[in-house]
Amino acid sequence: MSVTFAFKHEMEASVKKRRSNVVLALDLPLQKRGELLSKTISILDDVHPFVCAVKLGYHSVLTLGPFDHLQKVLTLADDYELPTIMDCKLNDVGHVNKAMADLFFKVGFKAVTANPFIGWEEGLQPVFEVAHRNGRGVLILVHMSHEGAAEGYGRLIWDQEAKKAVPQYVIFARKALSWKADGAVVGATFPKRIKEMRDILGDEVPIYSPGVGAQGGRAEEAVRAGARYLIVGRAITLAKEPAEAAKALKSSIARQFSALT
Amino acid sequence: MSVTFAFKHEMEASVKKRRSNVVLALDLPLQKRGELLSKTISILDDVHPFVCAVKLGYHSVLTLGPFDHLQKVLTLADDYELPTIMDCKLNDVGHVNKAMADLFFKVGFKAVTANPFIGWEEGLQPVFEVAHRNGRGVLILVHMSHEGAAEGYGRLIWDQEAKKAVPQYVIFARKALSWKADGAVVGATFPKRIKEMRDILGDEVPIYSPGVGAQGGRAEEAVRAGARYLIVGRAITLAKEPAEAAKALKSSIARQFSALT
Repeated sequence: MSVTFAFKHEMEASVKKRRSNVVLALDLPLQKRGELLSKTISILDDVHPFVCAVKLGYHSVLTLGPFDHLQKVLTLADDYELPTIMDCKLNDVGHVNKAMADLFFKVGFKAVTANPFIGWEEGLQPVFEVAHRNGRGVLILVHMSHEGAAEGYGRLIWDQEAKKAVPQYVIFARKALSWKADGAVVGATFPKRIKEMRDILGDEVPIYSPGVGAQGGRAEEAVRAGARYLIVGRAITLAKEPAEAAKALKSSIARQFSALT
Repeated sequence: MSVTFAFKHEMEASVKKRRSNVVLALDLPLQKRGELLSKTISILDDVHPFVCAVKLGYHSVLTLGPFDHLQKVLTLADDYELPTIMDCKLNDVGHVNKAMADLFFKVGFKAVTANPFIGWEEGLQPVFEVAHRNGRGVLILVHMSHEGAAEGYGRLIWDQEAKKAVPQYVIFARKALSWKADGAVVGATFPKRIKEMRDILGDEVPIYSPGVGAQGGRAEEAVRAGARYLIVGRAITLAKEPAEAAKALKSSIARQFSALT
C-alpha cells in the first residue's frame, strides 16, 4: 500500500502562501438551509484571504446536505485553494468510521477529525488506511477545549507495566505519533498542556488549537506554547466585521510566530 | 424546569406491545440515495413486527438527508409506533452537542446517543437539559462492542482520593446513573462487563447491547448478563430474509427473558 501525507504538506503550503495560521471554523448558528448557505458563502468570501483552511462540523453538513448545498461551499473553498476539514470527531466502531471517512472524502473534504478514545483495532485503523491511501488527513483529538474536557482527557490512567499513573492526553499524544496522525487537536484553553504535548509531538504531528475567543483561549499564548494552527469560529463568524476580525487575528498570530524565531 | 423521562416509558411500552427486545440498527452499506431509501423502507416494512425500536447512524442520516428522505423513514417508524434513536455518539463541546441534539429532536428522533468521555460541564449537560425538557432520551456509551474498545473504555483510571485504579467503564456507569441517563450502551461482545454494569445500574438505567451477530456477540448471553435491549444490525439487514432473521432473534431472546423470571 502506498501511503502519502499530502494533507500535511497542503496545510503548510497554504500557511506559506497566505501567511496565516488561522483555520476558520465555519459553523454558524442553526438556521434555515437557504439562509445558512448564503451566510456561509458570504463569510468565506469575506474572510478567505486571512485564513489557511476551513473546518466544518456536523450541524452545517447536515443542514446544508452533503451532496447538495455543501458542495457549493466546498467548491468555493477549493477555488480559494483552502484545504477543508470535516470535524466529525469519529468515535464509532471501525466499519462505521470507515463508511463515514469514505463519505466525507468522496464529498470533497481533505481531512477528518477522530477521537483516539475509540482505539485502533476495529476503531481508527480503517480510517487511517483509507485516508493515507488517498492523500487525505486524520487529525486526532488529544485534549479538547471545554471546561468538562478535563473529566475525560485530563484523567490519570493507570499504567500496569510502569506502575504509575499517566494523563490520558499524554497517552493520546503518543498514539497520535505512533499512528502517524496528520495533526493533534489540543484546546487553547489549556496552554500548559499544549506545551507538554509539543514536547512529545515535536514537529512530527502539528498541533491544531481550538477554543480561541468565545471559549476564552488566547491565540498568542497557544502559539507560544507550541500550537501550529489556531482554529477560530465565533470570534470571526459572529463578529460585526468578520474580515476585520480575521485580519486582526491573522496579524497578531503572525507577529507571535515571528517573535518565536 | 419540568423534566420527564418519557423515552424510557415509550421503550418499555413498545417491548410490552411487541414482545420484542430487539432494537433494529437500520444502517445499510453506502449506496445511492434513492436505492438506500427504498431498501431502508423495505426492510422496515418487513421487520417492524419483530423489533421494539429503530436506531440510525450518521451515514444513513447524511445520505438520506435529515430534512429530506429521512423524514419518510422516521414517519414510517412513527406509523408503526416504533421509537427512533439517533446514534450520533455526541462527543463535541457543549454548544455543538446542543445544536446537534436540537436538530435531531426537531427532525423527529426520540433519543440520541452520547459519549460520556466528553464530560458534563460544557459537554453533555446541555444535551440532557434539552432532552429531558422535551421528553426525549439520552443513551450513554458505557462500553462499546469492538475489539479496540478495551483501549479506551477498559483502561484503569487512577482515583486520586480512593488511591486506587477503577476501570473507565465503571466510572462511565456511575455517570450514567448520576446524570439520569435513559440508557447505557454496553457491547454484547463483553458479557462479563454487562453483568458488572447491571450490578451498578440496577433497573434505573437499562442496558442497550450492540455487537450481536456480525461482531460476534451472543444475544442470549447478553440477556443473561443483564442487557434489556439488544441492538442488532447486519445480522438482520444483510440476512437473505430479514423478517425471518428478526423473528428468530426476537423469539430466542424472548425465551431467554422467560427463563430468567
